[in-house]
Amino acid sequence: MAAEPQTNDHRKRPRRRGDALIAAILHATIEELEERGYAALTMEGVAERARASKASLYRRWPTRAELVMDAVYSVMPDPGGLPDTGGLRGDLIAVLRRTARMLDGPPGQALRGLMAEVLPSPERVGQVRAHAQGMGRQMMEEVTRRAAHRGEISPDALTPRRMEVGQALLRNHFLFHHEPVTDVMIEEIVDEVLLPLFHTTPVDAAESASGPRI
Amino acid sequence: MAAEPQTNDHRKRPRRRGDALIAAILHATIEELEERGYAALTMEGVAERARASKASLYRRWPTRAELVMDAVYSVMPDPGGLPDTGGLRGDLIAVLRRTARMLDGPPGQALRGLMAEVLPSPERVGQVRAHAQGMGRQMMEEVTRRAAHRGEISPDALTPRRMEVGQALLRNHFLFHHEPVTDVMIEEIVDEVLLPLFHTTPVDAAESASGPRI
Repeated sequence: MAAEPQTNDHRKRPRRRGDALIAAILHATIEELEERGYAALTMEGVAERARASKASLYRRWPTRAELVMDAVYSVMPDPGGLPDTGGLRGDLIAVLRRTARMLDGPPGQALRGLMAEVLPSPERVGQVRAHAQGMGRQMMEEVTRRAAHRGEISPDALTPRRMEVGQALLRNHFLFHHEPVTDVMIEEIVDEVLLPLFHTTPVDAAESASGPRI
Repeated sequence: MAAEPQTNDHRKRPRRRGDALIAAILHATIEELEERGYAALTMEGVAERARASKASLYRRWPTRAELVMDAVYSVMPDPGGLPDTGGLRGDLIAVLRRTARMLDGPPGQALRGLMAEVLPSPERVGQVRAHAQGMGRQMMEEVTRRAAHRGEISPDALTPRRMEVGQALLRNHFLFHHEPVTDVMIEEIVDEVLLPLFHTTPVDAAESASGPRI
């Protein structure tokens, strides 16, 4: 297909296909989320903003929920690209700050809207789960793995259940409180909960529980 | 007011007032929740089942959400009445089992419905928060206080943030997974997360973090 000269009138633009079209639609979805919020977001509004046909949206995303999840996923930072602060405390604070910033922006808007939509029909909640939880867990695994590699903590301290704790506390705050997560709260979670946890192994704890009393 | 003889025709029953009427309405609300779920629950259905007038409901509860929260609260067990198993591990398991049972029954149904209703308008979420979180925190404070009193753990291990962890993990599971909490999961949370946490103080952890590496 030969490229036509671009003009400001989108009807005369070349038809975008494949990746370029998808990128435009996902970008438009994020902008609509930011401006209108999830409840007011429509396939029509996204199509218009992306200068795409509604059919091209529905072909890939049968529902608004699926479109929004893909869009949110597309703007999430790469968990491998986390800054290495050289210590577990700094890394944990960086991870929780990144999660807090996402919850405070379009991904959080989307999460609130999607949860409201799927909670009454919990069989659909699996759709949201992977998107909502995958990133946090990956980041947590990444920074604790680094700390174990440095010898700062024992690899035995790293169990799947423990990887959930920090994000569960943030998500809990996000869903049940109507205020952004503060840095004070993040440091509290790191210093009172995560660092003590990652500096003890479950086995240490079992011995201490059955050992002499304090 | 003289009591009239009771018959099966509710229209001929004496008018109940005060506590008896409230109890009947709350009880009917729980039954409607169990049978229909939150989404299908109506003020009319509750009024009919309670043999009360709709006006008597609206006088006390301007919205369905407020009625449901009061009803759920009325069936929650007294946190002071928790069994004392004599050890922190047993007590923590008892607390989480009780929470899991609530989430699996009408209170959980109500929580899902209420969250779906208030998430898009987060300024209303405070209404749900107290009901959803108060009980769990009270139970956690009760059993950890007992353990500190017995000398099983140090009082310094008990910070407000730590009191949230167990319930946050359960609520997280409840909202993002469509399966009941299993006993295996409860023991994992207790053994891998809560016991290690309550057997370390935040200060121990800070020293260990800045001290010699493992």
